[in-house]
Amino acid sequence: MTAAEPRLGPATMVETFSYETLYSEKSVDTALNPGLHAKYDFATAYPAPETLPLDGLIQSLQAAVDSNSTKVLAELAYYPHQLGALELREYTAQKLEADRGFTVTADEIALTNGSGEALALVIQALTNPGDVVLTEEFVYMGTTAQLRRFGADIRGVAMDEGGIIPEELEEQIVALTAAGDRPKYLYTIPEHQNPMGSTLSGERRRAILEIAHRHNMPILEDDCYVDLRYKGDVQPAFRALDDSGIVVYVASFSKLLAPGLRLGYFTASPELMRRALGFKIGSGPNQFAAVAIEGYLRNNLESHRDNFNPMLQAKCDSMTAALEEHFGDSGATWSAPEGGCYVWLTMPEGSDISSIRDKVFDQGVGYVAGVAFEADGSGRTGHNCARLCFAFESVEKNAEGIALLAQLFKQHGAM
Amino acid sequence: MTAAEPRLGPATMVETFSYETLYSEKSVDTALNPGLHAKYDFATAYPAPETLPLDGLIQSLQAAVDSNSTKVLAELAYYPHQLGALELREYTAQKLEADRGFTVTADEIALTNGSGEALALVIQALTNPGDVVLTEEFVYMGTTAQLRRFGADIRGVAMDEGGIIPEELEEQIVALTAAGDRPKYLYTIPEHQNPMGSTLSGERRRAILEIAHRHNMPILEDDCYVDLRYKGDVQPAFRALDDSGIVVYVASFSKLLAPGLRLGYFTASPELMRRALGFKIGSGPNQFAAVAIEGYLRNNLESHRDNFNPMLQAKCDSMTAALEEHFGDSGATWSAPEGGCYVWLTMPEGSDISSIRDKVFDQGVGYVAGVAFEADGSGRTGHNCARLCFAFESVEKNAEGIALLAQLFKQHGAM
Repeated sequence: MTAAEPRLGPATMVETFSYETLYSEKSVDTALNPGLHAKYDFATAYPAPETLPLDGLIQSLQAAVDSNSTKVLAELAYYPHQLGALELREYTAQKLEADRGFTVTADEIALTNGSGEALALVIQALTNPGDVVLTEEFVYMGTTAQLRRFGADIRGVAMDEGGIIPEELEEQIVALTAAGDRPKYLYTIPEHQNPMGSTLSGERRRAILEIAHRHNMPILEDDCYVDLRYKGDVQPAFRALDDSGIVVYVASFSKLLAPGLRLGYFTASPELMRRALGFKIGSGPNQFAAVAIEGYLRNNLESHRDNFNPMLQAKCDSMTAALEEHFGDSGATWSAPEGGCYVWLTMPEGSDISSIRDKVFDQGVGYVAGVAFEADGSGRTGHNCARLCFAFESVEKNAEGIALLAQLFKQHGAM
Repeated sequence: MTAAEPRLGPATMVETFSYETLYSEKSVDTALNPGLHAKYDFATAYPAPETLPLDGLIQSLQAAVDSNSTKVLAELAYYPHQLGALELREYTAQKLEADRGFTVTADEIALTNGSGEALALVIQALTNPGDVVLTEEFVYMGTTAQLRRFGADIRGVAMDEGGIIPEELEEQIVALTAAGDRPKYLYTIPEHQNPMGSTLSGERRRAILEIAHRHNMPILEDDCYVDLRYKGDVQPAFRALDDSGIVVYVASFSKLLAPGLRLGYFTASPELMRRALGFKIGSGPNQFAAVAIEGYLRNNLESHRDNFNPMLQAKCDSMTAALEEHFGDSGATWSAPEGGCYVWLTMPEGSDISSIRDKVFDQGVGYVAGVAFEADGSGRTGHNCARLCFAFESVEKNAEGIALLAQLFKQHGAM
């Protein structure tokens, strides 16, 4: 190859060019996330780097190549199947049967670039602009952002420490339907909810399923935290309780292994899956990570969880013990999660920890203010709440960071 | 964890559930691509598995871990930056400067899930439904599918064996503008075009840039084949000839390494980049592949290209020699690419190799009929043309497959 020719100097024509009239009406000039992290980073949403089985993943990739390099090469050399790598879909089907008690074939699973892509595809297949969508009153802002982008009118359903309250859900559906705003579907994170940390009991799930059938309302079940349980009993997936197609099941390897792998998946009724995949941009997700994940989890899932979850529990215990020590007399309450990544802190009514978030961040403690998770985005509630991720920092830093948080809240008049 | 509860039997309520009224208006029930391959697979769009440096990629990943496992772990443990892994962006900036002669910083590059995602993001930032978009008269159907999905009214610009004809381009812009259909932007694959195999000369690029400035019309430059040149001189990128922001530059590691890695990128003026990234679903692309690619290419780009491109040339030579032998007397013509993956076969006017494509596939030879690449999708042209990928099959299979193709065309009355 020869070198490229030198570029033209600043031509006079350059001055005339402008994008002013060219941007699409839907485009928005949005600042990039600077990706900053506080010294005590409770604002994250994932486990710590040291828990990531990087050597194991690479060894699994190498082992797959050593045992059948032709096959691995052929998979990487082709554009991935729209559903993603077959081996990881087969493994996922086995894992769902073993862990979640329902049976799907590999061809009923679509791998995606994280569960975020899965949710976006399903949302697009089910949502017309203006459609009412129900969800927990505080819920993962990544999903509410997608729902809003595709025009959903999001309404939060009343919760208690056990998650969505079925009776409240049905009352709300009836009232909305009477007002001409029949809800289209329910999005829920039933296990170790983000941000509240709550888990729906099997009894509530059955009640919610009955309500969903009565109102012909699909349930979009986001089960991405189910592998991160360290105490108590796992509750049955909505999908395991119902084979009718009313449940769309979404999950991920991001929390169990690493977000940077970008591998999630979903399963739904065949026509809904085809319609959802019609919104896909490009082919299936990266095969490189898929081969590594499949090889690693097939041999190490149990030992990985056995190492991982006690460590999560130690981190959670450290954070809640520090909350007891430093917030015990403040009138604050906090959730008691049985897994997942989050403790939900509620300061007394009237306390505002939302407006001081940036100052506290600069002084060393990161958290996400509750208002950011508000389902309807009205900005009316959650100012006295925060999501604290206990999974990322160490046991020691969880304790230190909570002590500093109390000190900073006092300094800023929030407690 | 305890086992999930047994699922409910077939409940009576199940029968009442239906998605009939729930699918969004934009959703379409689209069959999945079955992903079939003919014995002689000239319908693909990528190099062969044996060229993929899988061991090198894994070794590079392992080397990155060995030299700084904390850093690699931290990158995988966090959700990727919206722009993707910093190291690969830094490497990409260096590669663009060395290979393409223009300077951008790592923060002016966004890594994406293949170049398909990059194109979709830019298209969304620039296209309102009904906007006229220009492109080569035959062009990559993945891009025309995206353009159509976001409402573009695509018009093909006349080409010869040297690609887009600048005079024809300007005449078309003037005529469209006079008719109230001012073109919004031009999408082009200037180097080893897909499917035609043509390369625009530096002189034509300069002429097209002047036209673009006169009409305030951005150029979306898809440079994904530039690394695959095995003879002749590389032509300057549009982006290297113009610093004004009018050029959006998109490229990929899919062709140089492997499609299954799903890593492409783009660079554009800052506001356009922000607006394009606003359409992103989820975070940056997978870090696992990014770390492997950066490590591998930083040490092996030259040797990889030195091995890779002579092999591509041998494959192309084998296919064109077989075309000469078996199609030389048929009145057919074919392109003489200097790189890339494709030979464009044109049978005599009136010959229809589009309608017999499925039969020929079943009998052992896969190709994509020219009509599939028609810019305006009218179905009027290209029935006597085919894109033949010479990069995927071996030298021997290229020769055998073309011999069989001639035999099958005769059998089906196409020559």
